[in-house]
Amino acid sequence: MEKHIITVEGMSCGHCKNAVEKAVLALSGVAAAEVNLAAKTLTIEIDEAKIGLTQIKETIEEQGFTAL
Amino acid sequence: MEKHIITVEGMSCGHCKNAVEKAVLALSGVAAAEVNLAAKTLTIEIDEAKIGLTQIKETIEEQGFTAL
Repeated sequence: MEKHIITVEGMSCGHCKNAVEKAVLALSGVAAAEVNLAAKTLTIEIDEAKIGLTQIKETIEEQGFTAL
Repeated sequence: MEKHIITVEGMSCGHCKNAVEKAVLALSGVAAAEVNLAAKTLTIEIDEAKIGLTQIKETIEEQGFTAL
């Protein structure tokens, strides 16, 4: 498992936090996903044999946010 | 049906808008509910024989927002 911290812009409330975490956790290869609203970050633990950061960021964008 | 406009504080995004509208629309006697995020308002059409503003405001508060 590898840990990554992704900056996510546009999250404003607990609903946004839940939407991002739920969508990312639903991906195969993601073991953990936690948003820090104040820091505008998503911290994830992923199995890089199964999933890459590109797919994670696409999933965040699909929820209506900007992944940097 | 009577129309009312309630000021709601704490709504920051489309998820908040949906949460308030869905919870209020689920109440018996509510025919319409629409949030204007920019104006911080919820416009409702209710049958006052079935439901009062107090119950509407309690439902908004249960969703984590402040109804004035």
